[in-house]
Amino acid sequence: MPSKVRIALDAMGGDVGAAVVIPGAAISLHRHREIEFLLVGDRAKIEPELEKHPALKAASKIIHTDVAVAMHDKPSQALRRGRKTSSMWLAIDAVKKGEADVVISAGNTGALMAMSRFHLRTLPGIDRPAIAGVWPTKRGESVVLDLGAAIGGDAHHLVSLAVMGAAMASVLFDKPRPTVGLLNIGTEEIKGHEEIREAGDRLRAVNLPELDYLGFVEGDGIGKGLADVIVTEGFSGNIALKAAEGTARQMAELLRNEMQRSWLSKLGYLLARSAFKALRDKMDPNKSNGGVFLGLNGIVVKSHGGISSEGFAYAIDVGYEMAHYDLLNKINQMLNREGGALSSVQTAQEAVS
Amino acid sequence: MPSKVRIALDAMGGDVGAAVVIPGAAISLHRHREIEFLLVGDRAKIEPELEKHPALKAASKIIHTDVAVAMHDKPSQALRRGRKTSSMWLAIDAVKKGEADVVISAGNTGALMAMSRFHLRTLPGIDRPAIAGVWPTKRGESVVLDLGAAIGGDAHHLVSLAVMGAAMASVLFDKPRPTVGLLNIGTEEIKGHEEIREAGDRLRAVNLPELDYLGFVEGDGIGKGLADVIVTEGFSGNIALKAAEGTARQMAELLRNEMQRSWLSKLGYLLARSAFKALRDKMDPNKSNGGVFLGLNGIVVKSHGGISSEGFAYAIDVGYEMAHYDLLNKINQMLNREGGALSSVQTAQEAVS
Repeated sequence: MPSKVRIALDAMGGDVGAAVVIPGAAISLHRHREIEFLLVGDRAKIEPELEKHPALKAASKIIHTDVAVAMHDKPSQALRRGRKTSSMWLAIDAVKKGEADVVISAGNTGALMAMSRFHLRTLPGIDRPAIAGVWPTKRGESVVLDLGAAIGGDAHHLVSLAVMGAAMASVLFDKPRPTVGLLNIGTEEIKGHEEIREAGDRLRAVNLPELDYLGFVEGDGIGKGLADVIVTEGFSGNIALKAAEGTARQMAELLRNEMQRSWLSKLGYLLARSAFKALRDKMDPNKSNGGVFLGLNGIVVKSHGGISSEGFAYAIDVGYEMAHYDLLNKINQMLNREGGALSSVQTAQEAVS
Repeated sequence: MPSKVRIALDAMGGDVGAAVVIPGAAISLHRHREIEFLLVGDRAKIEPELEKHPALKAASKIIHTDVAVAMHDKPSQALRRGRKTSSMWLAIDAVKKGEADVVISAGNTGALMAMSRFHLRTLPGIDRPAIAGVWPTKRGESVVLDLGAAIGGDAHHLVSLAVMGAAMASVLFDKPRPTVGLLNIGTEEIKGHEEIREAGDRLRAVNLPELDYLGFVEGDGIGKGLADVIVTEGFSGNIALKAAEGTARQMAELLRNEMQRSWLSKLGYLLARSAFKALRDKMDPNKSNGGVFLGLNGIVVKSHGGISSEGFAYAIDVGYEMAHYDLLNKINQMLNREGGALSSVQTAQEAVS
C-alpha cells in the first residue's frame, strides 16, 4: 500500500478558480486514491463544488481565506497584498510547515514564483529556481528546463539545472540514468556561449551516475526526443517553448480551416476523426500541463491559468509523482554529493590552466 | 520594362549541387524573365543540366572551377582551401567585382558566412552580419532575424537588426513602414535582458519613418504574425526557428502516422487531400527557404543544403526581390541617416542619466 501523498491546492488560482480546481482534484483522486487534499480558498466557493464529488470531499480539508492573488497582479503587489493571507500563500505555507508534500496553483506565474521563493527559499547551492516542463516528443516525453524563471546563468547554474532536471526525469519516466542534452545552436563542440561549453565539459568530466550527458542538442532536437532532459537558461527556454506552442496552434488552426473548405474535405475529416483526436491528444497543452518549480525547499507545481479540469488534473498527477517518489530528497542528495564532485572538477581545471 | 538582375549561383553548393541548382534557376527564370545568371562551378556538371533548359542556357554564363567547398568543411578550412578558387568564393567575388547583384548558395552556412564576411566586409556601422529568414505566419509572412549568425549583442546591435530587417520587409512585403517587434519572454516593459529593453527604448524614441516599433513579442507571437519583423540576437533566433521547424515536422509526421492506422482514416485522408496539401504548402520549409545575410557590402542568400529545385528557386526569388528593389541601398540609407539619430538618442539619454 503506498503511503499518503498530501497535496495543497490553491483553489482560487487560475482564470476560473474553484470550478476548475475542484473537479480537477476529483479526476486526479480517481487515479491516485492515496492523495489527501488541502483545499485553500473561499469556503463559499469550494463547498458547493465539493458537494458534487463525495469521494473528494472525504479526502479533503478546507483552509479558508477570502483573499486571492489576481491573475494580473505583479509579483511585488501579490507579495505585498497577499502575503500570509492569500490562498496562494497559505497553500505554499502548508508545504513550508510540512502539512503538505506539494503545492499546486493555476494562479499567476510571477506571483507564485515570488511567493514560493520568498517563503520556501532556495536549496543550498541553488541561487535561482527554475521552471521545468514536460515536452511531448516523437519518442514520448522530455523534461525541458528552465522555461523562463531565470534569465542567463553561468556553467554552475546550467549544471545545477541538469542535475535537477535529471532527478525530475528519473521520477517521471522511471529511468535510473536519464540522458541529458544542453540546448545550443550547433552540435559541434566549438559553437555556442562559453558557459554552455563549460557546462558541457563539467558534465562530461564528472560523469555522474544519475545522468548520462549526451552533448549539445539543437532546437529541433527537443521534439525529436534526443534526450530525456534538455537544459537551457530561462530566456531561450521560454522562447523555444512559446515558438513550439505557437507553431502547434498555428498548424492545428490551419488544418481546421482547410478542412472546412469543401464538402469532400469535411467528409474526410469525419472519417479521419480518430487520427485528429490522436494528434490533439498528443500535442494537447493540457497533457503537458504542469510546470514544476525546481530548486526550492519544497515542490511547487504551476498549472496554466486557462486550463480545463482535465488539464488541472494532469498538473496534480505531476505533483503527485514528484511527491510520491520524493523528488526533493533526490535533488538534495544529488546536489550535496555531486556538488563536491562538480566543485573538484572546477578546481582541477583551474589548477591546470 | 524592369532592368536586368544579375544573379551569381554557386552551382556546386548543397547536398546535390548542379542537378538541383540548375533546374531551380530554370524555374525562377520562368517567373522572372529579366534575370541573368552567372553559374559558378564545374562546367562538366553544369553543361549537361543546362542542355535541358534552353531558355536558362541563353540567359547564363558559366564561370568554371572544379574546386568546391564541402558541406562538412569548417569555415576556417573552407577559407584556407577554397579562397579565390572555389565556386562559393568566385560567386561571392562576382558580387564584390560588381558583376552580379546578388549571390545565392546552398553550400555550408558557416563557410558561406565566413567567405562573405571576409571578402565583402560589413557595412559601415555594422559589426557582425545577421541571417534573416522569412517565417510563415497566420497572417502571411514575417522577417525574423538574427537566425544564428551572431550570438548575443548590445542595444546598438539589436537596433541595427531592426533597421536591416525593416528594409528587407519593406522590399519583400511592399510595405513602406513595416511593424517591428523585439523578441522577449514577456510583453511587460520590465521583463527581459537589459539590452532588449534599451533597444526598445531607443526604437521608440527615434520613431523612424521606415519602421513602426510595436514593443516586445513573445515566442508564440512570431507565428501569430504580430509584427512584420521580429528582432532577436542569433542564439535565441536560432533556437526559436529550430524549435518551430521541429514542431511542424513532428506534427506532420504524427498526423501522417495516425492517418495510416485505419481504412477509414486512410479514406478520410484521400478525401481531405486538398486540405493536407494546403497545410504542406503553407508550412513547407521550401517555401520559406532563403536565409538572407544582412549587414555586408552585398546581398548573399543562403538556401538550405538539402533542398529541392523548387525550394532553391524560391531562394533565387528572394535574392531577385532583394536585388530588384535595391535592398542594399535602402539599408545603407537607413543606417547612414538613422545612425545619427540613434546615436543622438543615446547621447540624450546619457546626458539625462
